[in-house]
Amino acid sequence: MFIVGEKINGTISKVKEAIHAKDGRFLVDLARLQLEAGASIIDVNVGPGDEEAENLIWAVRSIQSSLNVPLMLDSGNPEVLKAAKEVHSGRPILNSISGEKSEMERLLPLLSKGDCGVVVSCIDDEGIPSTPEGTLKVAEKSVYMLTEAGVNRNDIYFDPLVMSLATEFQAGKMAAKAIRLIHKRFPYVHTIAAISNISFGLPNRKLLNRTFLVAAMVAGLDSFIVDVTDRPLMATLWAANLLSGNDEGCRNYLQAYRNGVLE
Amino acid sequence: MFIVGEKINGTISKVKEAIHAKDGRFLVDLARLQLEAGASIIDVNVGPGDEEAENLIWAVRSIQSSLNVPLMLDSGNPEVLKAAKEVHSGRPILNSISGEKSEMERLLPLLSKGDCGVVVSCIDDEGIPSTPEGTLKVAEKSVYMLTEAGVNRNDIYFDPLVMSLATEFQAGKMAAKAIRLIHKRFPYVHTIAAISNISFGLPNRKLLNRTFLVAAMVAGLDSFIVDVTDRPLMATLWAANLLSGNDEGCRNYLQAYRNGVLE
Repeated sequence: MFIVGEKINGTISKVKEAIHAKDGRFLVDLARLQLEAGASIIDVNVGPGDEEAENLIWAVRSIQSSLNVPLMLDSGNPEVLKAAKEVHSGRPILNSISGEKSEMERLLPLLSKGDCGVVVSCIDDEGIPSTPEGTLKVAEKSVYMLTEAGVNRNDIYFDPLVMSLATEFQAGKMAAKAIRLIHKRFPYVHTIAAISNISFGLPNRKLLNRTFLVAAMVAGLDSFIVDVTDRPLMATLWAANLLSGNDEGCRNYLQAYRNGVLE
Repeated sequence: MFIVGEKINGTISKVKEAIHAKDGRFLVDLARLQLEAGASIIDVNVGPGDEEAENLIWAVRSIQSSLNVPLMLDSGNPEVLKAAKEVHSGRPILNSISGEKSEMERLLPLLSKGDCGVVVSCIDDEGIPSTPEGTLKVAEKSVYMLTEAGVNRNDIYFDPLVMSLATEFQAGKMAAKAIRLIHKRFPYVHTIAAISNISFGLPNRKLLNRTFLVAAMVAGLDSFIVDVTDRPLMATLWAANLLSGNDEGCRNYLQAYRNGVLE
């Protein structure tokens, strides 16, 4: 189980301000808060723009100068990912590369050393697949290209690109099926999702987010980009892990209970 | 989606007292409370004992004299079910008949008119199956016997007999798989479960119960024996229904929101 803290994101106004003011302390505190709340790794997204590479380099250096923690470098721009990877200490995860041929080819050299993880957004030149089987097909193409290029197969994280239930009422079912198909076909890769996408535009988003977390986990999802400060969501995560049949003797669940995180 | 209110149960001390004192008002109020909280039908279990038949007959008459509502007649004793069915107005659901041959044969004549639903506990003469495939096998045998005897196939509710995670850490996964197998093989039958069995002996039972509800619903469970006064559980139920792909246009979820039941 791999928990990614999502809160360092340049689309959140306070984070945007901190980046603009080059307030490194703010980012370090936000990273620490998430680590203490259970994050395994911290996503860092400084928001798009001309200064994205510069800002992401600054953010990575700021956080890693205080905390010995790997980061998920989050950008839609391959050049930005490349620049940030160069200054990152340890093994980062790049978030994300798409299955589009030109982007794959542009990023593959960066991945050839096998010294980082990579999130693959399940989209290709034909767009976002409209069926779980289509998502699997994108994953298939990508896994061949990536492993051949030198990526360790268990460093690959497939993101099935969860849609909102508001626009596609079967979005939850479709995501769960895509996750199930990918793990069946490639038992060694990871699957990852930004959980809160499911609830965009609907009321009681946190309820839907944690409910989707359960549905996705029982389907096999093993990596989660979430708000780790959402306590009911984190409690649900330990319960869902137990329900998924992954928690022998209920050990992790009981430990979470003793740590007070199930309240 | 079929929601069974579980609170009229003779193992709960206040209910036991009311039955002993023949306090019909108490049962009517408890039934009404559950209907208002979202129950589709009320389970009535007066607890075992020499006076079980007499007590269940009294309970059915007391409740139905005030409320026009079908009941789930709940007893492990076929004679008690038979006696209670005779005084019940409308179509009751009998809870439960087991897949054991002698019990099947004893109850089949009672079911031949097709004028009631029946919960089948997935246990047979060899005991509770230890695998989901074994559960499916019991369901298969039962569905043939029951439909041949005159039961409408969509009046059958299979209960996979959920165990506690405390004694079998894969209980959630196994129950979900059994539910999935039964619906795949027999798309027209129902599956039903007493949700709270999953959490027996563990802390934060309500968290586990609602988490299991999600896992079971996405596997296909369509009928639930639950504490309908547990508000977070009921909120989760509407969210899980949406996540399962059964709520076109999010209509039921949004209606539940407007009704204030998602809080």
